[in-house]
Amino acid sequence: MEKETIESLGEFGLIDRIKSNAVIFNTNTALGIGDDAAVIDNGNTFTLISTDLLLEGVHFDLTYTPLKHLGYKAVAVNVSDIAAMNGTPKQITVSIAISNRFDLEAIDEFYEGVNAACEAYHIDLVGGDTASSRSGLVISVTAVGEVDKDKIVYRSGAGENDIVCVTGDLGAAYMGLQVLEREKQEFLGNPQMQPKIDDKTYVVGRQLKPEGRTDIVHDLNEIGVVPTSMIDISDGLASEILHLSKHSQVGFTVFFDNIPIENITLETCTEFNLNPIASIISGGEDYELLITFKQSDFEKIKSIPEITPIGFVTKEIENWLVLNSGEKTKIVAQGWK
Amino acid sequence: MEKETIESLGEFGLIDRIKSNAVIFNTNTALGIGDDAAVIDNGNTFTLISTDLLLEGVHFDLTYTPLKHLGYKAVAVNVSDIAAMNGTPKQITVSIAISNRFDLEAIDEFYEGVNAACEAYHIDLVGGDTASSRSGLVISVTAVGEVDKDKIVYRSGAGENDIVCVTGDLGAAYMGLQVLEREKQEFLGNPQMQPKIDDKTYVVGRQLKPEGRTDIVHDLNEIGVVPTSMIDISDGLASEILHLSKHSQVGFTVFFDNIPIENITLETCTEFNLNPIASIISGGEDYELLITFKQSDFEKIKSIPEITPIGFVTKEIENWLVLNSGEKTKIVAQGWK
Repeated sequence: MEKETIESLGEFGLIDRIKSNAVIFNTNTALGIGDDAAVIDNGNTFTLISTDLLLEGVHFDLTYTPLKHLGYKAVAVNVSDIAAMNGTPKQITVSIAISNRFDLEAIDEFYEGVNAACEAYHIDLVGGDTASSRSGLVISVTAVGEVDKDKIVYRSGAGENDIVCVTGDLGAAYMGLQVLEREKQEFLGNPQMQPKIDDKTYVVGRQLKPEGRTDIVHDLNEIGVVPTSMIDISDGLASEILHLSKHSQVGFTVFFDNIPIENITLETCTEFNLNPIASIISGGEDYELLITFKQSDFEKIKSIPEITPIGFVTKEIENWLVLNSGEKTKIVAQGWK
Repeated sequence: MEKETIESLGEFGLIDRIKSNAVIFNTNTALGIGDDAAVIDNGNTFTLISTDLLLEGVHFDLTYTPLKHLGYKAVAVNVSDIAAMNGTPKQITVSIAISNRFDLEAIDEFYEGVNAACEAYHIDLVGGDTASSRSGLVISVTAVGEVDKDKIVYRSGAGENDIVCVTGDLGAAYMGLQVLEREKQEFLGNPQMQPKIDDKTYVVGRQLKPEGRTDIVHDLNEIGVVPTSMIDISDGLASEILHLSKHSQVGFTVFFDNIPIENITLETCTEFNLNPIASIISGGEDYELLITFKQSDFEKIKSIPEITPIGFVTKEIENWLVLNSGEKTKIVAQGWK
């Protein structure tokens, strides 16, 4: 038998390994590792806890990421995790480690973004840590949210015949990243050049300033619909489908033609000579929601224009992407990124 | 006027600056930035949130820090923050970023330490994030705790004539660090050498495996005493006295001779030719508690042997260290570390 390694386990295998060794001692821990957020029972409601660690050179590139956008995004991606549990974010802690190439102006700019996101989502910045870093910028954000006990949505609740939906549109953030990477290369070749991203505002904006979909949580609450399962689309649609499939022990069949995609996203795909299907279903960082609903809620959710049905849930635990041609592609796990 | 810089602000000035720009939107945020933990009102009880960011080469040196101890310590220092609010830690999230020089065995070892601490403090590991790092190991821990509303202790509650106490003994962790640094230098000079730390087990242990004093929180609860103010001693006694003084708007007079110090700590000071007073009051990482009590609770707290009175609180906002000779030294802020 091959010796297990980090590579052979992959990120999710590693998380499963950590989870399997974690013991739960407290009765108020309703859910530990394995969903978009941890769930703590506080009597009347559930408290949700989600955390993200972001490193310069791995998760972001300061060559083309304004610090204000970075601060905003660091908050938004955690808001997205809370939204994926059908919760409302309430508090956030933000920790940063900075090297001596950062001055006070840079820190102010970063926190301007953090505060702008806090205002947009009505979240309170309640703590954090400041440290020095010997290399790049390190950011760690923890979001605390709240959800009524009868409204919480896990990854595990999808059932046969449920309708599979996504919010907003997909693939734009990934194409925005391609544009920014190209501009960076051209800039490195010719520092006098002016950026040519005017017609790419939408995709670039989706990469630099994503939003967590708390508006959808609000809208669903308004129409009185609780999804059967939900996850935020941070690693790409295919990856999230596999998560819901595994946790709910059901299969997903989704139709590529039903996936909402902006024209500029497809045009940019063509421009970059990238396979649109792979780009759309594997491109990450859209921070939209993948949601399943009971058939009986279908009429109600039609009133929310930002929610688009893209497929259905099957009893058989197999996940399929159906193309316009009728051709079917099995959705399978990718390796460690 | 001089332009403000990170250096001129210092760490605590920077935190004040971040705090002053943070707006509170939610009524359940009972306390934001500025104490050992944030405080969230969940109806019946307060939820406490504390977070720490730890970077290799800044906060720890893997040359002499076993990964298991590091995992334990990362949890313990956050437990310490929750204890400083008179709370009980319940859940923890642990995020790590690792470079490719870490193998699965190293990760397992780190989490063995995390899990050992979780068992020791009865905390549940409920989440986190795993990422890759281009340089060293990065660890971010967030602890979630609970405290009865009538038992919470802030930094701001110290009053005139209160008794100033510390738990355990001070200065050992800092001397342990000196021993480990010396061993590292000798090892770099002669890799064949054997470590000579047998007689330094205590101080080295205090550096590598500190404990958060949840036992004191438990003992105080048993005797029905609620401190007037409390903070954990992570940056050194002098620094923590200044925090309590500032938040409570009172002064502290403490007697060096009353500070509990182990003989081995003082012996190691002498061996390293270090000023014992400076080492004891400015050496950090003991993770003991600095506590103030009402005079009327003095008889009761005598029953807890781990609590030692070291001085008293004055109305005048000046902080003094009184030496055996009767000489007084004013405790003032140090610069950015």
